[in-house]
Amino acid sequence: MRVANQYFRTIWVDDENLPDVHIIDQRFLPHQFKVEIISTYKQMAIAIKEMHLRGAGLIGVAGAFGVYLAYRDALTSNQTVNFVQKAISEILSTRPTAVNLKWAIGIVASKTDGNLTLEEKTRIALETAKRLADSDAENCRLIGENGLPLIEAISRNKKGDAVNILTHCNAGWLAFTDYGSALSPIYLAHRKGIRVHVWVDETRPRNQGAALTAWELLNEGVPHTLIADNTGGHLMQNGMVDLVITGADRIAANGDTANKIGTYLKALAAHDNGIPFYVAAPSSTFDFSLDSGMGKIPIEERAANEVRYVSGLYNGHLVDVLICPDNTPAVNYGFDVTPARLIAGFITEKGIVNPNSYAISNLLH
Amino acid sequence: MRVANQYFRTIWVDDENLPDVHIIDQRFLPHQFKVEIISTYKQMAIAIKEMHLRGAGLIGVAGAFGVYLAYRDALTSNQTVNFVQKAISEILSTRPTAVNLKWAIGIVASKTDGNLTLEEKTRIALETAKRLADSDAENCRLIGENGLPLIEAISRNKKGDAVNILTHCNAGWLAFTDYGSALSPIYLAHRKGIRVHVWVDETRPRNQGAALTAWELLNEGVPHTLIADNTGGHLMQNGMVDLVITGADRIAANGDTANKIGTYLKALAAHDNGIPFYVAAPSSTFDFSLDSGMGKIPIEERAANEVRYVSGLYNGHLVDVLICPDNTPAVNYGFDVTPARLIAGFITEKGIVNPNSYAISNLLH
Repeated sequence: MRVANQYFRTIWVDDENLPDVHIIDQRFLPHQFKVEIISTYKQMAIAIKEMHLRGAGLIGVAGAFGVYLAYRDALTSNQTVNFVQKAISEILSTRPTAVNLKWAIGIVASKTDGNLTLEEKTRIALETAKRLADSDAENCRLIGENGLPLIEAISRNKKGDAVNILTHCNAGWLAFTDYGSALSPIYLAHRKGIRVHVWVDETRPRNQGAALTAWELLNEGVPHTLIADNTGGHLMQNGMVDLVITGADRIAANGDTANKIGTYLKALAAHDNGIPFYVAAPSSTFDFSLDSGMGKIPIEERAANEVRYVSGLYNGHLVDVLICPDNTPAVNYGFDVTPARLIAGFITEKGIVNPNSYAISNLLH
Repeated sequence: MRVANQYFRTIWVDDENLPDVHIIDQRFLPHQFKVEIISTYKQMAIAIKEMHLRGAGLIGVAGAFGVYLAYRDALTSNQTVNFVQKAISEILSTRPTAVNLKWAIGIVASKTDGNLTLEEKTRIALETAKRLADSDAENCRLIGENGLPLIEAISRNKKGDAVNILTHCNAGWLAFTDYGSALSPIYLAHRKGIRVHVWVDETRPRNQGAALTAWELLNEGVPHTLIADNTGGHLMQNGMVDLVITGADRIAANGDTANKIGTYLKALAAHDNGIPFYVAAPSSTFDFSLDSGMGKIPIEERAANEVRYVSGLYNGHLVDVLICPDNTPAVNYGFDVTPARLIAGFITEKGIVNPNSYAISNLLH
């Protein structure tokens, strides 16, 4: 994707022998574009937990590179495979809701299982992580192609008037290696000359919509408008939203979907106003070990200070401002679960899937 | 109500000849408690428009005092009644959604109509505004008494466990002369020793929940927890909310209710989870000139910068931080309309009313 007309991915390695890992440090966006070099698995675990990077797909790929770094750490400091096992547990525990982390680490772990030298395992982990990164990007590109007809159909119905699409949080290219999930069909439609306009939920507490989605859309030249999270219902009641597309962090076998906190409220409003609500996600986001989502998908609870403070630019510096009395208690649930009954369909790399166990299992399992 | 154990109202006059008007300047809460002295109708119009004070009931009372100040301005600067008429139009235009402003100004205008000297009209306007302030407080006290049984019943069902009540925005004493609407039954329950706990929506864009409701509850010693506006649905899905009470800015004859943007989303979630959703408001909030609310209640659109920036405390100073790219467009609708079908009832000073035209007209019209 383009940043000031230069092509970037969110995570990459230079093409050399057992390289460090580069990531875009998303904590400083949209105000500063910084690249962080990650040299150890511990640094990667911190980067995931403290959200230097975030997003369903990207967490998975970063976890895979984290396992590679754990092997490299073991190799350079003469540690055993036991060290790597402990490192993997540590990386797995950073973000409990997103299933892609578990999925991607599982793949690297299985590829590096067996009777191999530590150096061989390190190289295999690196190659596997690189392949997962490429396949994450390719899956997102396909999600764009598969979601495009939804936007085209609405555009035709509106005789070319702008298609108004609401999205929550950031499920753009910053949440994956490239392209994004929810935003991928939007980027493709825009490139094909279809008029689109995106309502961007700011997405408190961490404002990934205001900071990341608005920044992506700006860089891609897609018309958009930032709104408070409270606003979507009013827009839907007044015919100002044609389609909702969000991402997902984990989808149960029956279609119940964990995504950024507040997604459920938008799904309710879409349902109440007859507006199609789609979830865009690669098939790796489905967790077939869970027959349903409610009460079963673990919901990450983050620091209360993310609610009590808001981060933003003041006098050229990024600062945190306190928005409540000093001693106000707060809670910070990171995700909620949208029941499958409120979802029109899943836009995946394999096609659009209906929100029921049979259709999901048939196409994806 | 108590502020650091001292008794305050939100608006008052000292008991002297044609006095200035005092208000709590809410822009600096919760970080600084400031009293502003309002000496002219123009200052009052600015205080209402720029939200030095806000809230359905308080806007009405402030408007009434504004008309008094317009008469006093006319008296001291030898203006005619025409000056006052223009001043009234100016005050009326400050906040289009709240009906209490129209209602209260209408009462002062009718009391000062007819063949009276400017000095007589000034005195009558002052007395009327003071009476409206007293009656606003008394109505809110009665709303507390009428809402209390709802909380008592849930408390009995839960065998004395804390009753979890979610509220949106600030419909506490800062939104009225005293007591509040949505918070009034909660304060009364707390004083009677019933265990309550309040989920406080931060209420972006202006964060009246985080800044005002949390501060009120802190001063009154009521247990509470601040949450992002996105969180209420998740709490309701997981049995963590027993009751929702919000205020209202205008209620149509059929019960459709305009309130702070985002209220509709919480009403949908309450309905989806079988949780009673009540609206607390004095009967002056009902607008019988509108048979229904959707598309008919004017929805105030405020400055986009209230969305693009967040106000808070940094290094001991109140500052505004930018949360999005420099040039991101934003819109800022102040209110939405919750359809009557999602509302369990209206808690008014005259009792609890069912959300239908017949019941509303019978009790209140």
